[in-house]
Amino acid sequence: MYKLVLMRHGESQWNLENRFTGWTDVDLTDTGRAQAQQAGALLRAEGFEFDLAFSSVLKRAIRTLWIALDAMDAMHTPIGLSWRLNERHYGALQGLNKAETAAQYGEAQVLQWRRAYDIAPEPLSRDDPRHPRFDARYHRVPADQLPATECLRDTVDRVVPFWDDSIAPAIRAGRRVLISAHGNSLRALIKHLDGLSDEEIIGLNIPTGQPLVYELDAELRPIRHAYLGDEEKIRAAMQAVANQGKAQQG
Amino acid sequence: MYKLVLMRHGESQWNLENRFTGWTDVDLTDTGRAQAQQAGALLRAEGFEFDLAFSSVLKRAIRTLWIALDAMDAMHTPIGLSWRLNERHYGALQGLNKAETAAQYGEAQVLQWRRAYDIAPEPLSRDDPRHPRFDARYHRVPADQLPATECLRDTVDRVVPFWDDSIAPAIRAGRRVLISAHGNSLRALIKHLDGLSDEEIIGLNIPTGQPLVYELDAELRPIRHAYLGDEEKIRAAMQAVANQGKAQQG
Repeated sequence: MYKLVLMRHGESQWNLENRFTGWTDVDLTDTGRAQAQQAGALLRAEGFEFDLAFSSVLKRAIRTLWIALDAMDAMHTPIGLSWRLNERHYGALQGLNKAETAAQYGEAQVLQWRRAYDIAPEPLSRDDPRHPRFDARYHRVPADQLPATECLRDTVDRVVPFWDDSIAPAIRAGRRVLISAHGNSLRALIKHLDGLSDEEIIGLNIPTGQPLVYELDAELRPIRHAYLGDEEKIRAAMQAVANQGKAQQG
Repeated sequence: MYKLVLMRHGESQWNLENRFTGWTDVDLTDTGRAQAQQAGALLRAEGFEFDLAFSSVLKRAIRTLWIALDAMDAMHTPIGLSWRLNERHYGALQGLNKAETAAQYGEAQVLQWRRAYDIAPEPLSRDDPRHPRFDARYHRVPADQLPATECLRDTVDRVVPFWDDSIAPAIRAGRRVLISAHGNSLRALIKHLDGLSDEEIIGLNIPTGQPLVYELDAELRPIRHAYLGDEEKIRAAMQAVANQGKAQQG
């Protein structure tokens, strides 16, 4: 039996401003840093040790991981970075306020963009300076794999190969793995691990900065999963994520 | 022509206390953190970008690298960690004050331990809790390669294979490389790169937290090297390193 820990990055500046972030490389807020510190302290208190960590190439996930590893006195843990763990690309919505977008297009449309499995927002144009092809960190990614928008299905399609090729083999080799990533790249992974349907994944929300522990059998099928830490706080954090698309919040 | 940047970690707690550190995993001081930040800011101001970074598995080198990469807005840079970039293992001297040791054994003996190419201090006993075999981060290192003390020759002997097998191939493949390491592991690497004799290396001191830029030809032979930044400050920092073994400092 294996254990795998998933961690959504702590609160980012655009989580706080309720804006669609996607691949925009925004940093953590002070609250987000404190969440990462608490996550690391909790993992340490519960006796977790890791042989290997993975993160997206976005700084909010990397900083969350750095702070957590520091809190665990485990800065020497090797870190595998991949764009395949990046947040879902939000296309032309990147930068827009979620509540304002809801007021303009209606909550149903925003909920569809946020949660429908196979409806992607408008893509960024190839000449948009926000297009990932202009960012040096993606220069080694083949052009036909680099997204300009994504629905969750697209995110699943690029997360799963990284699970299959890099993470799963490490777990099978006995490495204890910690993954620091994003709301939607973790939803994509969880959909795959738990075999959730396209409908079931819609209702799933992941709170920021709360370590989520999966126990896996020899075939890497989940036996059970649970968040570490205070149940009441976690329920409130999940509800806050679910509420982000509602217009009255703006 | 290639560029390679070497960086000795910022001031550590035991640099400040003038103690033999070796593989002891002491952290940076606030001054050390500020040095790392300045090193990153300087590299950024000079237009340096890196595709790959390397560090030892000791937190003073890792934190120096993290802070510098953060200052360069390049937290997404992949980091290769290896025990082969660790500081020279100082054996049973680890933890002792350099000036007190000089007062007790004489400056000549301490200078010999610190600088003679092939004289190692007493090794740690296998049962000493400081022995690296008790540290999980070294569990994958073959037991016969794990040092309990080292002279600089030993350090050269385990740094050079990492250069040959990991760093040099990356540079030849066009990756722009930054290395964060230690006074003696960098001296070991520089001895190899510059083809210095066993005598020549004795007089070479490396200041903390100052990026050292090597220009290499197609065969990775050094063409020239220079520290980035203010010459006057660097000279003073090098002199401070050279003075550490003198008894009157204690």
